[in-house]
Amino acid sequence: MIKVGIVGATGYTGVELLRLLAPRDDVSIEVVTSREMEGTAVSVLFPNLRGYVDLPFTAPDDEVLARCDVVFFATPHNVAMRSARSLMERGVRIVDLSADFRLKDRAEWEHWYKEPHESPELIEKAVYGLPEVNRDKIRHAQLVAVPGCYPTAVQLGFIPLLEAGLIDPMRLIADAKSGVSGAGRKAAVGSLLAEASESFSAYGVAGHRHLPEISQGLKLAAGSDVGLTFIPHLVPMIRGINATLYAAPVGNVSADDLQALYERRYRDEPFVDVLPKGGLPATRNVKGSNICQLAVHYLSASNTIVVLSVIDNLVKGASGQAVQNMNIMFGCVETSGLHSIALMP
Amino acid sequence: MIKVGIVGATGYTGVELLRLLAPRDDVSIEVVTSREMEGTAVSVLFPNLRGYVDLPFTAPDDEVLARCDVVFFATPHNVAMRSARSLMERGVRIVDLSADFRLKDRAEWEHWYKEPHESPELIEKAVYGLPEVNRDKIRHAQLVAVPGCYPTAVQLGFIPLLEAGLIDPMRLIADAKSGVSGAGRKAAVGSLLAEASESFSAYGVAGHRHLPEISQGLKLAAGSDVGLTFIPHLVPMIRGINATLYAAPVGNVSADDLQALYERRYRDEPFVDVLPKGGLPATRNVKGSNICQLAVHYLSASNTIVVLSVIDNLVKGASGQAVQNMNIMFGCVETSGLHSIALMP
Amino acid sequence: MIKVGIVGATGYTGVELLRLLAPRDDVSIEVVTSREMEGTAVSVLFPNLRGYVDLPFTAPDDEVLARCDVVFFATPHNVAMRSARSLMERGVRIVDLSADFRLKDRAEWEHWYKEPHESPELIEKAVYGLPEVNRDKIRHAQLVAVPGCYPTAVQLGFIPLLEAGLIDPMRLIADAKSGVSGAGRKAAVGSLLAEASESFSAYGVAGHRHLPEISQGLKLAAGSDVGLTFIPHLVPMIRGINATLYAAPVGNVSADDLQALYERRYRDEPFVDVLPKGGLPATRNVKGSNICQLAVHYLSASNTIVVLSVIDNLVKGASGQAVQNMNIMFGCVETSGLHSIALMP
Amino acid sequence: MIKVGIVGATGYTGVELLRLLAPRDDVSIEVVTSREMEGTAVSVLFPNLRGYVDLPFTAPDDEVLARCDVVFFATPHNVAMRSARSLMERGVRIVDLSADFRLKDRAEWEHWYKEPHESPELIEKAVYGLPEVNRDKIRHAQLVAVPGCYPTAVQLGFIPLLEAGLIDPMRLIADAKSGVSGAGRKAAVGSLLAEASESFSAYGVAGHRHLPEISQGLKLAAGSDVGLTFIPHLVPMIRGINATLYAAPVGNVSADDLQALYERRYRDEPFVDVLPKGGLPATRNVKGSNICQLAVHYLSASNTIVVLSVIDNLVKGASGQAVQNMNIMFGCVETSGLHSIALMP
Repeated sequence: MIKVGIVGATGYTGVELLRLLAPRDDVSIEVVTSREMEGTAVSVLFPNLRGYVDLPFTAPDDEVLARCDVVFFATPHNVAMRSARSLMERGVRIVDLSADFRLKDRAEWEHWYKEPHESPELIEKAVYGLPEVNRDKIRHAQLVAVPGCYPTAVQLGFIPLLEAGLIDPMRLIADAKSGVSGAGRKAAVGSLLAEASESFSAYGVAGHRHLPEISQGLKLAAGSDVGLTFIPHLVPMIRGINATLYAAPVGNVSADDLQALYERRYRDEPFVDVLPKGGLPATRNVKGSNICQLAVHYLSASNTIVVLSVIDNLVKGASGQAVQNMNIMFGCVETSGLHSIALMP
Repeated sequence: MIKVGIVGATGYTGVELLRLLAPRDDVSIEVVTSREMEGTAVSVLFPNLRGYVDLPFTAPDDEVLARCDVVFFATPHNVAMRSARSLMERGVRIVDLSADFRLKDRAEWEHWYKEPHESPELIEKAVYGLPEVNRDKIRHAQLVAVPGCYPTAVQLGFIPLLEAGLIDPMRLIADAKSGVSGAGRKAAVGSLLAEASESFSAYGVAGHRHLPEISQGLKLAAGSDVGLTFIPHLVPMIRGINATLYAAPVGNVSADDLQALYERRYRDEPFVDVLPKGGLPATRNVKGSNICQLAVHYLSASNTIVVLSVIDNLVKGASGQAVQNMNIMFGCVETSGLHSIALMP
Repeated sequence: MIKVGIVGATGYTGVELLRLLAPRDDVSIEVVTSREMEGTAVSVLFPNLRGYVDLPFTAPDDEVLARCDVVFFATPHNVAMRSARSLMERGVRIVDLSADFRLKDRAEWEHWYKEPHESPELIEKAVYGLPEVNRDKIRHAQLVAVPGCYPTAVQLGFIPLLEAGLIDPMRLIADAKSGVSGAGRKAAVGSLLAEASESFSAYGVAGHRHLPEISQGLKLAAGSDVGLTFIPHLVPMIRGINATLYAAPVGNVSADDLQALYERRYRDEPFVDVLPKGGLPATRNVKGSNICQLAVHYLSASNTIVVLSVIDNLVKGASGQAVQNMNIMFGCVETSGLHSIALMP
Repeated sequence: MIKVGIVGATGYTGVELLRLLAPRDDVSIEVVTSREMEGTAVSVLFPNLRGYVDLPFTAPDDEVLARCDVVFFATPHNVAMRSARSLMERGVRIVDLSADFRLKDRAEWEHWYKEPHESPELIEKAVYGLPEVNRDKIRHAQLVAVPGCYPTAVQLGFIPLLEAGLIDPMRLIADAKSGVSGAGRKAAVGSLLAEASESFSAYGVAGHRHLPEISQGLKLAAGSDVGLTFIPHLVPMIRGINATLYAAPVGNVSADDLQALYERRYRDEPFVDVLPKGGLPATRNVKGSNICQLAVHYLSASNTIVVLSVIDNLVKGASGQAVQNMNIMFGCVETSGLHSIALMP
């Protein structure tokens, strides 16, 4: 039985963790913290959990959290970097869904998050929790930094091309689109239904915090510097990310070769589904599931490779991937608790 | 291992049956029929099933279906009434999601469906598959008629009051609202996103086929005739039914007594969740789950009882309830395959 | 040229007033106030107004407002009751979109709004701005209280029946549904797209502030006390209200007579559109327009009259009706600036 | 008084033409044709037009149409190319919203539309109705081909850069997103609310009919061949197109210079609104209006120019632009009937 604590479970990644973990026989949810909601039953805030999670929220308490085998941080950035160390010293393993330990370059982290990093010594220890790249390291990690939602969709899409050296790494374009749950469960005028529905727009054009995270991963895959243009957009829907990726081939490529490359790269991956040639992934295909659906197209007229990548931002883009990491860390079957089929329609 | 066939699985109740049944270890999906899609892989039509359901659609064939333990009809009305008998004669058990065997009064069926009923002798054999009322009969049934979506939400809401004789059965009002998936997966201008979203309207005011089904069930609960006004509305969302029910008390009632009545009536029901006093069910609380959430209110100022009832029309209102019936028929744990928590947000 | 000021124009009724007034040749928008947005161009907050409204928001200033012919209060309740008097003493006419002057019974106002009313002496002077009832009084009013959104839809639906004495006034039910813009442009978790879309629920069952306003109007129409059950619901869309009204006839009625009654009652009303017999109003039919669409049905099986009433909550339910009132007050053609056709789809 | 006929007005561009033309004093709608709906009042199909358009649909009849000054074809492709000539011979001017006369290269048209062009001699006479490029030719045109929706958004975005020679014309990427009304008012499973809402996906990756139209316009602006990658996507909303355009500068560029270029290019254009530097257009800013909102960004880190372009696909992308063309052809003020402010929220 894996004893689990969840810190900061009042947001969407928190309720999604509970949805995925509560039905499991091999997991026991010991504590769910929230300062603001202390004393309220979790199922009052999230009525979908009635009958499944009977705990109240409690204030975070290291003594209690230290009794867990693993603690998930479903918090905004800058919480885990203050709390992880003391728990790790007591032997707790940490799965951090926030951005605190994703960037290996401390200066870059401090540039983008505009504050000093408070646990720089843990940055190196942290394993970037993208199982398709780091599965072996995750197995033994004490601290896993779960990738962001856009970074998951974009990296899984570009990695086969970069690893194979088939594209110009300096001319990468990622046009990404996310449902509104990506903005989190916080009161903000721009996320109101009356503002965000029946509209579509780009945002963060001048710079989005996921840009350095994506670049870091793509550099590792390319083995060289990369030039990435990343433009996120807001889609009037709850869940889902679609990344449309554009790359320039460096030599001759064919649609068949590209298809074979993707199928080979992800053949053994339980949560990456490469569609047959010509496929068109839709975010609805993965709503509520941990799967990343990919398709690769070669447009000969403009000699451009287009990769389409979709995930559920709250599952493969956050809580599902966090559970996948936990499964790897604790020697569970990697797909445990992640079997459920996407809700369609 | 329960061998399952699904007839007419190209609609929303079909894909929902597959979503619920495919992950089960004790169920084997043997055949999925569709004349129109014969030869196409099920997962081509429904890409959420990639990796879970590898069968192709096949043309309906009694020989093949007869090898199943149970056949689900996920068809429009008037298919099951033509096909059920020959399968039943070979010992197959039938779970019919259509309207063919819901009404006990053949004349009424023929009035509302405007054609002769082709298996009138089966009407009597059919058990109306509302487990909260007919669990014992379902256990031994060879033919179960799964209730309609509106009828499930409305009956579960009114039944405690009628059984207890607390309300005037001649003055029942059910103002019901359904997501668009209730109209099925068929090309119709009125169900287009550009027509149905950003709008709300009543329909079927002059008479909806679910009216006689609801009345039939309410009469049984009341032990007398009932007078029901039923107005359905279309909500710009995919899934979910909300029924707001209005009733006039016949004597003194109190909010506390009503609350106790509902809690008592549904105490042992795994899929009926009575909210605490003052509760406000929302369809999102049950999206993708088999639960019916209920709340009962007493408005003293106007001496009116208001019951709020929500379900997912495709789960408790169709395929989930069908699986619940199958579980009862085959002696499985009633909640098998129906554990998954509603997707929120 | 009518000189107009708008107080508190950062909400949805504010931007809607500007949308309706800015294109007019006979109206000059002199001042648009907001403490919080002082100095910001109105069109920065509302980019649909670029090129149409070039003013900045300014802090409210009685000197400036007093130079207007009419001042609209597009504020939450309790602002107008503090500011109207001093403007009225300087001869300014007031169109108040808030609830401050809607209820004639001061004690009831104070009960529902939980604070003392600060201008009780103006309550009597205020004219309730429902032109279909009070057109003559509006003409000469110095202070108009624009009806709420639900009250407009419900009153226009019930009034013909009550005036004609055809229904039992003690058994009125209004099952009402509103788009999310009715909650205003304020950051609130419950109004987030990720919370409010793909869901439907009742709210305010224990008591909604529009209940006493509706009852007040229905009493006047009935000439007697009324018993009203009013249940509002939230619809996952931006604009629109649908009210489904249930009433019990006191004698024999026929669908034809009811139809004739409604057509006669609203024959000369430019903004009430009675659909032909059997009609099913949809909120999309009036999106962006000042029209209330009505249909009346008689269900003989349950001897119940059902009236369907739809409006755009921000137009006929707020800013459009405010402009209609202004037109009447200033002797303009009543439909001035209110011609635009509903946006469909 | 301009006498107007509309052929094929049962789709979304038809009802939108009527919304824009019906309120005008200088336009008389003489005839609205539809074979399928012959005899039905237009306002029965489109209830937003009740009281504004009292005509019935009639079967197309050249005698009747020939009495009009201008006939709009709001039809699928291949209707206008069969009917335009005989009307033109009688002196009628034609505004064709379909694709029949958009491509100057007949072979290319026949390649993409997979049938012979039936009026090749008119191709040359047709003026491509993008006023920002062809205003003078439109003035005297007898036959105007109204640009497609994607082509309008993409061309207006790229043209300033190409005319100024600032970018590599062989490396253009247009990642475009459209609301579902772009698929028209026809029953299709993929456009159902239950299919298209809560999802996002690319389509037409292998080739979309708007690609040759866009390329044709960009070539004219560039004065050279262009290499364009165009990927359209479906957005779960009714109206709106967003095009995110990527280009590689050929020399040094600065954000300020780019801003100045766009402001200069469109300074006198009544329907192109260049946002201030750093702007983020949203489709809601132009919902129901004829405006194209543009913003230009320079991303120095990846040396890429990103242009954001939004329109309402049914207005500037179809019927509004058609009316703008009519205004130019008939010497009306170009903005006549196109003043209405976008509906927000």
